[in-house]
Amino acid sequence: MSNQELVVLGQDDGDPACCPGLLTAPLDEGQAVELAKVFKALGDPVRLRLLSMIASRAGGEVCVCDLTPAFDLSQPTISHHLKLLRQAGLIDCERRGTWVYYWLVPEMTDRLAGILTRPAGDPLPDRTATSAGAAS
Amino acid sequence: MSNQELVVLGQDDGDPACCPGLLTAPLDEGQAVELAKVFKALGDPVRLRLLSMIASRAGGEVCVCDLTPAFDLSQPTISHHLKLLRQAGLIDCERRGTWVYYWLVPEMTDRLAGILTRPAGDPLPDRTATSAGAAS
Repeated sequence: MSNQELVVLGQDDGDPACCPGLLTAPLDEGQAVELAKVFKALGDPVRLRLLSMIASRAGGEVCVCDLTPAFDLSQPTISHHLKLLRQAGLIDCERRGTWVYYWLVPEMTDRLAGILTRPAGDPLPDRTATSAGAAS
Repeated sequence: MSNQELVVLGQDDGDPACCPGLLTAPLDEGQAVELAKVFKALGDPVRLRLLSMIASRAGGEVCVCDLTPAFDLSQPTISHHLKLLRQAGLIDCERRGTWVYYWLVPEMTDRLAGILTRPAGDPLPDRTATSAGAAS
C-alpha cells in the first residue's frame, strides 16, 4: 500500500535531507492535509507505543500476538490502532497462518524526520531576551 | 513555557542524533503520552500550515495579522490553533502593542526529528518479496 501514499509528502529520492517542506516554505493545503493524517496517526499514546515496539524489534517484525499482552486493551482495539498506523503508511503487515506480522515502513519515518529537520547550519535563535512577556 | 516540557521527550543535550526513543526501544507509557500531545498538535492541516508559515518566515517571527489572511477562518479559530501549537511547545509568542508575534521553537522540531531518525547505518529492509500478501 505504501509507495503511492509516500510520494505526496515530498520528493521521492529517499534522502531525508532532501525534503524541506514544513520548516523552510509554507505548506500548500494539499500537502498539509496529507501530512496531517500521518501526524494524527502518531498523536495517540497507544499507537506511539505500538509503533516503537514494532520499530525497535530485533528482526524487524512483530507478531500481533506479542503486541497485545503489553496493553490493557482488547485485541480488536489494538487491531484498530494498528490499522490506523498502517493507513498512515507508517507500518505494513502480512498474515501468516493464524497471526498477522507487522513491520515499520522506514521510508515514512525517514520522510517525517526530513520534514522536521532544519536546514543545515540554521542556528538556534536566542529568545532569552524577548520571550519573557509571552502572551496568548 | 518550553524548557520543562521539552525534557520529558528525551535527553536534553540538544543533539537530534542523541534521542533514540521511538525507533530503537519501546516507549514507556509516560513518554508516549507526552510525545502524543505534540504529534496530535501536528495532526491538523491548518496547524501544519500555520507552523510552516511561522517556521519559514524570514526574520524568524510572524505577526498574527499576517497569518489570518491566508485562511478562510475567523481570527478566534486561528488563535485557537496557535494556542494548541504553543501548548505543544512547537511555537512561542509575545504580545507587542496590538499584535501577537509568533516564532518556531526549533528545539522541539529538532527533538521530533531526532526521535524519528533511524540509527546511522540501519539499512532499509527489502520487503518486496514478503509484502504482496498484506492483510489487515
